Amino acid sequence: MARGLGRRWRLFVLPAILVPLTLALRLAGVADLAVFAAAGVAVIPLAHLMGIATEELGKRAGPGIGGLLNATLGNATELIIAIVALSRAATLAATGDPADARSADGLVELVKASITGSIIGNILLVLGLSMLVGGLRYKTQKFSVRAAELQVTLLVLAIVALVMPELFQISYEGAGGVPPGLPNVSLGISVILLVGYVLGLVFSLHTHKDVFNPVTQEQDKPLWSRNFALGVLFASTALVGLVAEVLVGTVVGVTPALGVLRPELFMGVIVIAIIGNAAEHGAAIMMAWKNKMDLSVGIATISSVQIALFVTPVLVLASLALGTPLTLAFEVFELVAIILSVAILAVLAKDGETNWYEGVLLLLVYAIIGVGFFFHP
Amino acid sequence: MARGLGRRWRLFVLPAILVPLTLALRLAGVADLAVFAAAGVAVIPLAHLMGIATEELGKRAGPGIGGLLNATLGNATELIIAIVALSRAATLAATGDPADARSADGLVELVKASITGSIIGNILLVLGLSMLVGGLRYKTQKFSVRAAELQVTLLVLAIVALVMPELFQISYEGAGGVPPGLPNVSLGISVILLVGYVLGLVFSLHTHKDVFNPVTQEQDKPLWSRNFALGVLFASTALVGLVAEVLVGTVVGVTPALGVLRPELFMGVIVIAIIGNAAEHGAAIMMAWKNKMDLSVGIATISSVQIALFVTPVLVLASLALGTPLTLAFEVFELVAIILSVAILAVLAKDGETNWYEGVLLLLVYAIIGVGFFFHP
Amino acid sequence: MARGLGRRWRLFVLPAILVPLTLALRLAGVADLAVFAAAGVAVIPLAHLMGIATEELGKRAGPGIGGLLNATLGNATELIIAIVALSRAATLAATGDPADARSADGLVELVKASITGSIIGNILLVLGLSMLVGGLRYKTQKFSVRAAELQVTLLVLAIVALVMPELFQISYEGAGGVPPGLPNVSLGISVILLVGYVLGLVFSLHTHKDVFNPVTQEQDKPLWSRNFALGVLFASTALVGLVAEVLVGTVVGVTPALGVLRPELFMGVIVIAIIGNAAEHGAAIMMAWKNKMDLSVGIATISSVQIALFVTPVLVLASLALGTPLTLAFEVFELVAIILSVAILAVLAKDGETNWYEGVLLLLVYAIIGVGFFFHP
Repeated sequence: MARGLGRRWRLFVLPAILVPLTLALRLAGVADLAVFAAAGVAVIPLAHLMGIATEELGKRAGPGIGGLLNATLGNATELIIAIVALSRAATLAATGDPADARSADGLVELVKASITGSIIGNILLVLGLSMLVGGLRYKTQKFSVRAAELQVTLLVLAIVALVMPELFQISYEGAGGVPPGLPNVSLGISVILLVGYVLGLVFSLHTHKDVFNPVTQEQDKPLWSRNFALGVLFASTALVGLVAEVLVGTVVGVTPALGVLRPELFMGVIVIAIIGNAAEHGAAIMMAWKNKMDLSVGIATISSVQIALFVTPVLVLASLALGTPLTLAFEVFELVAIILSVAILAVLAKDGETNWYEGVLLLLVYAIIGVGFFFHP
Repeated sequence: MARGLGRRWRLFVLPAILVPLTLALRLAGVADLAVFAAAGVAVIPLAHLMGIATEELGKRAGPGIGGLLNATLGNATELIIAIVALSRAATLAATGDPADARSADGLVELVKASITGSIIGNILLVLGLSMLVGGLRYKTQKFSVRAAELQVTLLVLAIVALVMPELFQISYEGAGGVPPGLPNVSLGISVILLVGYVLGLVFSLHTHKDVFNPVTQEQDKPLWSRNFALGVLFASTALVGLVAEVLVGTVVGVTPALGVLRPELFMGVIVIAIIGNAAEHGAAIMMAWKNKMDLSVGIATISSVQIALFVTPVLVLASLALGTPLTLAFEVFELVAIILSVAILAVLAKDGETNWYEGVLLLLVYAIIGVGFFFHP
Repeated sequence: MARGLGRRWRLFVLPAILVPLTLALRLAGVADLAVFAAAGVAVIPLAHLMGIATEELGKRAGPGIGGLLNATLGNATELIIAIVALSRAATLAATGDPADARSADGLVELVKASITGSIIGNILLVLGLSMLVGGLRYKTQKFSVRAAELQVTLLVLAIVALVMPELFQISYEGAGGVPPGLPNVSLGISVILLVGYVLGLVFSLHTHKDVFNPVTQEQDKPLWSRNFALGVLFASTALVGLVAEVLVGTVVGVTPALGVLRPELFMGVIVIAIIGNAAEHGAAIMMAWKNKMDLSVGIATISSVQIALFVTPVLVLASLALGTPLTLAFEVFELVAIILSVAILAVLAKDGETNWYEGVLLLLVYAIIGVGFFFHP
């Protein structure tokens, strides 16, 4: 217990070093790339801390509310980074300066790309590494087909939701600006997705909870008091917001240095998405190594679904409030990458077993998509 | 028995009221919208009557011929409405008046949209409502995976058949008119689809009938004489034709009043498709409520397959005879909606179980597609 | 044994007649169509001979190396024909004559089309005929779902690899020439595919070989000495190269005579693909007739995977050495045909059973795609 608590305190050491360091570098005016790197690294232990605090609160609240907390706060880091980026885009767009308007468009594109990157990153990179790492230790590992197929179905729903606005975009190509009807369609579909997400929580946490949590796991004892957990949650959320502010402020300066053709796309899909999902990466791979492949698959697929059915529509609604237009019409490249990722997941998830080569296949698909985004014209 | 017969007689009451009412409203020259609504409502009990007469004939003919009758007459309502619309389009196109030519094009587009709407409506709306209604009463309901997967495979065949002409259309975009080769491709593919449909009947009704009808259900006793059933079938078919004539005659006047951007598309996909499939809707939902999910899934999926592999190619061939060009190249929007519907069906049909949330998911996909068609530019 | 050897000697009779005949016709200067037909027929028994020699070598080398030999030499015929065509294209392109440049482009297009045709031909034609022929004799036939699903997954990887370059091509449309980045993307993805192919061999022949070859089949005794088998392999490979030279030399003269709109596409997808895969056709159908559906499905699907993950990237790398640009950006028509073929295979492979109607469905999809390629604008 004392050791457990001791370990817990270590959680605070890294943020206590990295957050001030990031701010100091920013104020000292060093090169954007260094500040960006520091901020990116600082986000990771903060996201981990938010996850622990949510877990502690969930232990006190019981499995139902605990599940709800995880479902809404599980991807809070991505949500905060994206909202900070959208609000900066709104500020930049309001200046009237054409260079700022281009930066604003770049930030909106970056947000969409980080959504894409989170969805495909969880399916391909997180799950691929988990299967590979677990598969190097165990010949085959098992997971619940039923739970995985529910997530695959929800990802197909997400694809339907992204394809429709894309068709609006494509049929309007050539003419500049936003196609008529697209904002309405984005708004309508976002509301439908949120309805689907909320009813999905009712389904998996209430009416059919026995199907998805067959064994009532002996509840771990909470290590933190309720007020302490709440305090850590609020403090870490605020610090994520602060570091995200620095991260987003430097991203505009960093992107041209990359030398890729479409830096916003590559940064969002690969870099920001990996930063935002680092906590999931660590947890899922650890579970695979411990032969708990069910949890690995759950973390990776549920995280993708949360981004698609919860974070994305919330961002569309938030963008309306912020005055920055964020529609559900992504780049064709992004949509195709999502469709291909879900297709390979659907094929692999059917048999309830994994091995090292299935992990390799997911990573190869990630590599192919990465090559595509790197050279994207 | 007497009560059964008594119930049967009630079948004739609604048509006996609604058909004369529709004709009276038409002759009285009231607003198109009112006549259209009356005709739409009148079709529903007539379609039900055709279904009962087909069933009674089937009982006397034995399961093989009975299955054949259902397979050819099961979607007769849609077929009649579509042929009436195509023949009116041919008449309008022949006048040489540009306004009439536009109306003719609109009717052909309406026919295609009603095909799309029937296919996706059966999968998403009929099956979605059935799963939801059944799922509110029973926690999980079961159906035959084997039968459902045959229908999914046939729907994939239908998608292959629709994608090829679409590619002709797309690669010819920009230049006006019909791409060269498209009529030949449509004709060739229609013949291939009919071959597939007929061999599918040989397969499911003859060589492998035990697989799809494992228990020889105790055959219900016929309630009607053979001649009476034939008489009802012919009379109701003729009346459907008459009411369809009124329906199609008013649709041109109704569409501009809707205020949507592409009224033919929305009318066909949503309104006409619901009218034409109302009988399937009622039957499938009733079966789900009675926990016969196997029959619900069967009605919905087989109806979609019939539209795709039988009604559609027959309409292509009929349009050649009528002189109205109906090709298999649909709107991209329509084709994508069909592909997405089949994709979500394929994912849901794998486990042979349904619950309320799977119904919700199908309905949400229907809602997203409906939003798309409503605002379609 | 003597009879077995006797039969084996018959293998040499057909090549001994057909190869000299082809060369004689070519030297006599008869019409290209006759020479093309003779060369096409002569390839078939040579490919069979290469297969037997590979098998004999494999028997001496043990199952691991035997599997490796089959995996690399199994589609050597297609590889040789394609390399001969690419090298002739390089020679033609170097002349600087515009007519020769057009012929060179036509040959590169022919190579791509023969890749497409081999992939879809193995899935649809070979497997379709096998299921139909086997299904006419046996009501249902069984195969290993696990092995089939691995091949389906690898085909999905191949689709991912072909879709990405396609998006480059499409987004660059209008502007002539090769889109910037496309050669790099093709090269990068080809290397990734080869890594996937090699690791797949490690997986199925080494770490998980018991899963895919559960029973250690009693190894057949080799009938040929090692040196004789090597000699036959080298001689037949050289003769295939010689005949391929004639085949490719006449194809340019044959294509305009076909009367189709895009002769290279039709020739490659249908004709060259059937010639190159004739050995697989015969073997797979024979196995189905003998109720060894597992082997039929294996031959057809593994052959498709070999073309996609081994032959195709090797050709991309070879084209760099030859100086002819062969990218992974195929015709949209070709890519869509591959996607549809894999989709119907995925749906049919799920239940581990086949019947005559599933064979018919695959053949109907092949027919629909064939109609599409015949009239392709």
